[in-house]
Amino acid sequence: MSNGDIFIGEVIGTAILILFGAGVCAAVTLNHSKAKASGWIVISFGWGMAVLAGAYTAAPLSGGHLNPAVTVGIAVDTGEWGKVWVYVLGQMAGAMLGAVLAYLVYYAQFAANRDEEKALPTLGIFSTIPEIRSPAANLVTEIIATVGLVLPVLAFGLTEGLGESGTQVLIVALLVVGIGLSLGGPTGYAINPARDLGPRIVHAALPIPNKGTSDWGYAWVPVAGPLIGGALSGLIYNAAF
Amino acid sequence: MSNGDIFIGEVIGTAILILFGAGVCAAVTLNHSKAKASGWIVISFGWGMAVLAGAYTAAPLSGGHLNPAVTVGIAVDTGEWGKVWVYVLGQMAGAMLGAVLAYLVYYAQFAANRDEEKALPTLGIFSTIPEIRSPAANLVTEIIATVGLVLPVLAFGLTEGLGESGTQVLIVALLVVGIGLSLGGPTGYAINPARDLGPRIVHAALPIPNKGTSDWGYAWVPVAGPLIGGALSGLIYNAAF
Amino acid sequence: MSNGDIFIGEVIGTAILILFGAGVCAAVTLNHSKAKASGWIVISFGWGMAVLAGAYTAAPLSGGHLNPAVTVGIAVDTGEWGKVWVYVLGQMAGAMLGAVLAYLVYYAQFAANRDEEKALPTLGIFSTIPEIRSPAANLVTEIIATVGLVLPVLAFGLTEGLGESGTQVLIVALLVVGIGLSLGGPTGYAINPARDLGPRIVHAALPIPNKGTSDWGYAWVPVAGPLIGGALSGLIYNAAF
Amino acid sequence: MSNGDIFIGEVIGTAILILFGAGVCAAVTLNHSKAKASGWIVISFGWGMAVLAGAYTAAPLSGGHLNPAVTVGIAVDTGEWGKVWVYVLGQMAGAMLGAVLAYLVYYAQFAANRDEEKALPTLGIFSTIPEIRSPAANLVTEIIATVGLVLPVLAFGLTEGLGESGTQVLIVALLVVGIGLSLGGPTGYAINPARDLGPRIVHAALPIPNKGTSDWGYAWVPVAGPLIGGALSGLIYNAAF
Repeated sequence: MSNGDIFIGEVIGTAILILFGAGVCAAVTLNHSKAKASGWIVISFGWGMAVLAGAYTAAPLSGGHLNPAVTVGIAVDTGEWGKVWVYVLGQMAGAMLGAVLAYLVYYAQFAANRDEEKALPTLGIFSTIPEIRSPAANLVTEIIATVGLVLPVLAFGLTEGLGESGTQVLIVALLVVGIGLSLGGPTGYAINPARDLGPRIVHAALPIPNKGTSDWGYAWVPVAGPLIGGALSGLIYNAAF
Repeated sequence: MSNGDIFIGEVIGTAILILFGAGVCAAVTLNHSKAKASGWIVISFGWGMAVLAGAYTAAPLSGGHLNPAVTVGIAVDTGEWGKVWVYVLGQMAGAMLGAVLAYLVYYAQFAANRDEEKALPTLGIFSTIPEIRSPAANLVTEIIATVGLVLPVLAFGLTEGLGESGTQVLIVALLVVGIGLSLGGPTGYAINPARDLGPRIVHAALPIPNKGTSDWGYAWVPVAGPLIGGALSGLIYNAAF
Repeated sequence: MSNGDIFIGEVIGTAILILFGAGVCAAVTLNHSKAKASGWIVISFGWGMAVLAGAYTAAPLSGGHLNPAVTVGIAVDTGEWGKVWVYVLGQMAGAMLGAVLAYLVYYAQFAANRDEEKALPTLGIFSTIPEIRSPAANLVTEIIATVGLVLPVLAFGLTEGLGESGTQVLIVALLVVGIGLSLGGPTGYAINPARDLGPRIVHAALPIPNKGTSDWGYAWVPVAGPLIGGALSGLIYNAAF
Repeated sequence: MSNGDIFIGEVIGTAILILFGAGVCAAVTLNHSKAKASGWIVISFGWGMAVLAGAYTAAPLSGGHLNPAVTVGIAVDTGEWGKVWVYVLGQMAGAMLGAVLAYLVYYAQFAANRDEEKALPTLGIFSTIPEIRSPAANLVTEIIATVGLVLPVLAFGLTEGLGESGTQVLIVALLVVGIGLSLGGPTGYAINPARDLGPRIVHAALPIPNKGTSDWGYAWVPVAGPLIGGALSGLIYNAAF
């Protein structure tokens, strides 16, 4: 795969991931949305199908990583680091583009948030917020949850037939449904530095009415945790398989 | 594929799509339904499985587009416009047939709506209604949501194995689950001109008790938005892949 | 396939279908159940996964019809009626066995229903009950819903790869999820004469505390409707495909 | 497969199973979790996707049993008991490791349970508790529910294509979703001795604030029931298929 194909694939795929992912958070959070308050099953399936949409679209161009933690996990396993920067650049650009697209889809709902009586904090639509703020505990949560993503993703490549039948991305998407349901309770499962940092930059930059804080003090946790978890997955995979 | 097969395939497939799709909206909306008020997860999976049922049934005859936005997206990509009219004619006829069938399935529930004390507006069972009426914002929502459908659908054709294993329609159905969950909040995700216009005509024509307005003032948005989104998807696909 | 294999396959498969299907109705209905009042999404996925469990288990022995409407639809299409009686006999025996097993799984919950203060009607766990009692409308609902099952099931056989990849039953199971979500609101979607009649006989026969009526006046609708719908599907399939 | 590979595969796979499974119970139970009180559909899909994650990861090393009831069912069917002890040892070690990991993911939430005003019983996050305590009825529930797992799992091996397309574990995961939805109401569906006993030991050993009883009086039911159910499944499978 050429650098150009990788970059374009990761931009398009990660943009779709965040369009759907930030979209489902907007759908459940904002007033005047048909999905308002429809619960955790909607959030978890929304992010899972976001992976399905983005990764199947990107796969023919870039393999569809969409996540620096996956890219790093593969690099730790294979020892090939040469193209990591292209992947991460595409992922960050795509995540920011996707956040803007999600904002446009819910533009009227964001605008209605101008009415101060109903003003809701909006950061949770773009980036993750821990339920209990405890950097050490939050970091451990993100590390383990990311191992729960990247170690299986690496192992899926060993299952005969998944690649040939084209269903490997489907299994990854359902895995992400499961991570949301099971491991998302404490921190909102970033498990992907680009997924959290890209939209946080967009949240800080966009003129969203009553948007509230972008919470930069927490921003390092959903970057560091997934990167550590991704690297750890590569090491475990190398040792055990 | 002959014109006759295409037409019959699209009629049957789109009829099943709307039977299930309008059906789930009736199930969640109408009184005396076991699924009354069962929420957005039911709506989103209902429409996704509607695509699964309709598209797998139509696929052997017509390829199972069931949506003028998909047909236009493919035509923009391939440059072949000769059979577009056959597809769209079948899709419109099928959508109207499906809306009548959904009405028949919920006939007793619609009849019970005659009792004025309980009268509910019925258009939302047949066609989409925006939560915040803002033609420009609603149009942008429908355009982006349709790109979120048609661009991945075009790209799925590139994933080795999906066609051979017969699972491509399954992935499209789950993609539609995701679009509903994530992008359906503002406008109810028409993302398909036939899905909205056909049932709207049926709503206007059928003698449904206390049916309320057919809201023709909004009818152009869920036609124009998806057509623009479909064409845009063809262009992006051509450029990027 | 020998008559013995067909019979045993249909008994085991339909028993699993009803164990899971009546099970999920018990789970959502009865007091002292962890799934009490968990809603329509649980019912619909429960019956869909019941088909997945039963049909995958029966398929190697009998093809996994589990439903006289499917058996009749295939017979109308192919003109081969010679083994229909073996299938239907196995389906009826299996449905009754499955209802007894579901009763045993929820034995303590049924026993707790003895306490008259909490007594709940129990027929809905075993068989279908219309929300609005109107034989003509209920019959039309069951006919159309069964066409929504059997016509796609017949057409799935034409999709290249589904059989080879072993995923055909998965698609049927998801189709049944969709039928529940979309078309189950008015009558509770029997769409299968054995699924309704077998457990109704068991309900009448078992000494369930405070069990209430077995409602034999309605019992013909969920038998006749699905049989008509199955035959109609065979005719449509023959004409269109 | 070497004993070492089997052991490591079962440890890793069962650890992932319990990380996700205990995780979803924590997510729905504990205060300060984003998934608090999100219902039975979340529990059932959480455990199903736990199987998907664990079994796909373990499969290339050990075949991915993750459950002594499955291991015993296969041994009864094939008559090969030589490696059963390696499987069960790995499953028990993995289940305990997974319970510790789930505790770490929800560490801050468990710590917040120290506040006595909000203290919740925590055993239900680790192990199963019957809704109605009746050893005989609970045992029957676990036996039948385990037959509903192991008999289909054995039969899935006969479906042509499932193995070749790599989708067999997906079908097992969806089967487990169905067992949860349908048969989990009375006892919380252990259907796996390691899944219940391993985390119960961890619950007893860990210094969880306000953890409440580990309920050793009930512990034999979710061990004996699944083992009987697994053996019974092997016998039925041998006789019928």
